[in-house]
Amino acid sequence: MKKIFDVILVQNEIKAEAFLKALIGKNPLFVCIIGTTETAKIPGISAAGKYPELTDYTPPADVELLLLGSCKCIPGVPVTPEGIPTPALITMSALMLANIPALVVSGGLKINPRVPFLDLGGKPGSDIRTDKAVDKADEILWRAKIAGENLSRTADYLVVGESIPGGTTSAFGVLLAMGLDAKGKVSSSMPSNPHELKIKTVEEGLKTSKIEFGTLAKDPIRAISCVGDPMIPAFAGLVLGAAAKVPVLMAGGTQMGAVLAVIKASNPNVLNNVAIGTTRWIITDKTADLKGIINQIADVPILATDLDFSQSKFEGLKAYEAGVVKEGVGAGGTTIAAMAKSEGSITKDTLLKESERNYERLV
Amino acid sequence: MKKIFDVILVQNEIKAEAFLKALIGKNPLFVCIIGTTETAKIPGISAAGKYPELTDYTPPADVELLLLGSCKCIPGVPVTPEGIPTPALITMSALMLANIPALVVSGGLKINPRVPFLDLGGKPGSDIRTDKAVDKADEILWRAKIAGENLSRTADYLVVGESIPGGTTSAFGVLLAMGLDAKGKVSSSMPSNPHELKIKTVEEGLKTSKIEFGTLAKDPIRAISCVGDPMIPAFAGLVLGAAAKVPVLMAGGTQMGAVLAVIKASNPNVLNNVAIGTTRWIITDKTADLKGIINQIADVPILATDLDFSQSKFEGLKAYEAGVVKEGVGAGGTTIAAMAKSEGSITKDTLLKESERNYERLV
Repeated sequence: MKKIFDVILVQNEIKAEAFLKALIGKNPLFVCIIGTTETAKIPGISAAGKYPELTDYTPPADVELLLLGSCKCIPGVPVTPEGIPTPALITMSALMLANIPALVVSGGLKINPRVPFLDLGGKPGSDIRTDKAVDKADEILWRAKIAGENLSRTADYLVVGESIPGGTTSAFGVLLAMGLDAKGKVSSSMPSNPHELKIKTVEEGLKTSKIEFGTLAKDPIRAISCVGDPMIPAFAGLVLGAAAKVPVLMAGGTQMGAVLAVIKASNPNVLNNVAIGTTRWIITDKTADLKGIINQIADVPILATDLDFSQSKFEGLKAYEAGVVKEGVGAGGTTIAAMAKSEGSITKDTLLKESERNYERLV
Repeated sequence: MKKIFDVILVQNEIKAEAFLKALIGKNPLFVCIIGTTETAKIPGISAAGKYPELTDYTPPADVELLLLGSCKCIPGVPVTPEGIPTPALITMSALMLANIPALVVSGGLKINPRVPFLDLGGKPGSDIRTDKAVDKADEILWRAKIAGENLSRTADYLVVGESIPGGTTSAFGVLLAMGLDAKGKVSSSMPSNPHELKIKTVEEGLKTSKIEFGTLAKDPIRAISCVGDPMIPAFAGLVLGAAAKVPVLMAGGTQMGAVLAVIKASNPNVLNNVAIGTTRWIITDKTADLKGIINQIADVPILATDLDFSQSKFEGLKAYEAGVVKEGVGAGGTTIAAMAKSEGSITKDTLLKESERNYERLV
């Protein structure tokens, strides 16, 4: 696949190249959408925390790391049960190297971060098996759209990322409710993707909500409300508000499928101003299929940062090459933005070195 | 006094001219800091609401007006007891005409706005007579500084305004605690400035807090905590974070004295990158003395928008010429920014017409 700088043009090469070239030398704003849910506490669903109850602290700790260079609500940094550190470490490195400003948006949180964040009136998500996953999803989406409209006038383009433990499971729920074939296709922060558990969880949620595959194709708000999470309406609303005016790089893995489906059902016109920005680790993930999900929804380009941690001196970073964590907190999109802003002078090597420097300092 | 466009160079003419000229054609971000207090409910203190209990709704309603073009948490728009409408009507007109983006920041609120706002972890302010006016003022200031650092990288300059009922009284408290001669100098949204009531209230607060005039000159956090309001640390922190990088137009009346005193005591280096932007109604107010307050603190320029509502067809706008309301919600600063951004093509006449159009639609 063709590369520009250390960015792989994964899909839709001509559009991907045009999208990326339009960002070169430009000034982005990074917006990180965070949320927490009870779904993440189902044992075995999420590795975004040392143990399930800690997932409430992962998103606030992630954004503290981005804005302060260290966490306040937990000691150290968020880690998986095996001790592999959060991808926010990579995001922070990209933002620092390229001097990219960041703004935090809450879709709904149990624990607030000790840094400024944009409140959309949302609450933490429930368990998707209860039929009441997200309260006031329409209001969150609508308020996020207002924010997106205003933020689009403060930057040349937006990079939007997310941190929500258990997010691939709730995204999977929304994808099925909206009629997208996502079985066995959503990614995981674990190397052994627990597809069976995710399918069982989502099927239970759909059953409780009396939803069948595809019955909510035209009702994204209900899909989110029943089996989604509070990140999805916040992310979708932000893109809907911003992409009418500036390009938006949607920074994430397979969860971007659910967000994209919601955007398409709300206003397909903005789709020509968005691209997915992810990591090579998502693209080469044999347990998931990002392209297969996105292809069913829209003809949007996919870009992947060609980060390579195989030569890292730290086992915690090398583990990314074994398929642990893979993506999150906008790691893929922000490293792409750092390369584009610096016109290629920030490379995958620079990013590994800076990530190692931050790893050494924090882990 | 010299004018550039319809902006009066009120004080420090050479610096004022240089400050304003540097903004011409540039793209600002407007940040509106809001907060509420129990101080505002002391009968006779504030006209920012039809009656005292309604002051909790005025700041959220003001920012809803700015972002949506109409209020959600109250019917109509905030008015004084006499029915004179909020200056947010002017601010909204300026933002719309000049296409200036806006971001809302909460210092601490009883009622949240139904639009996105940046949360700094603050709580609504108490009555300044209780010795516990603001909880965690240091944390609010520190978080606002983080926000200011990030927002300063999203715009050529910031215009920062405020909406907090009863704000001149708590500002007066901070000014006295910090040793500034402000007696009879703070402005009011009422034509007959209730100086006696403000002095009595503040003196009671100082007595309860065991503070004498000037004893907290070097402890702005304690001054705010005892006799201030939650807008002050949020505003000061934002300026401290942003003015290190970009110019900041502090949009407000005599309350800017308290904010400026806090900034000076925290980091005087940023003072050379700020100016006060207010209205002619504040400058010509015979019951107050903005220049007399600012002169004691720092050598910063003062600019005033030369709005003239004397020929308005609406009594509610004409009343501004009689000294009602005068300023607030960044009306002075945003109209200055609209003139600067449009290189003078937006004038006081354009702004009156747009304000009348919005008045007709909303009041």
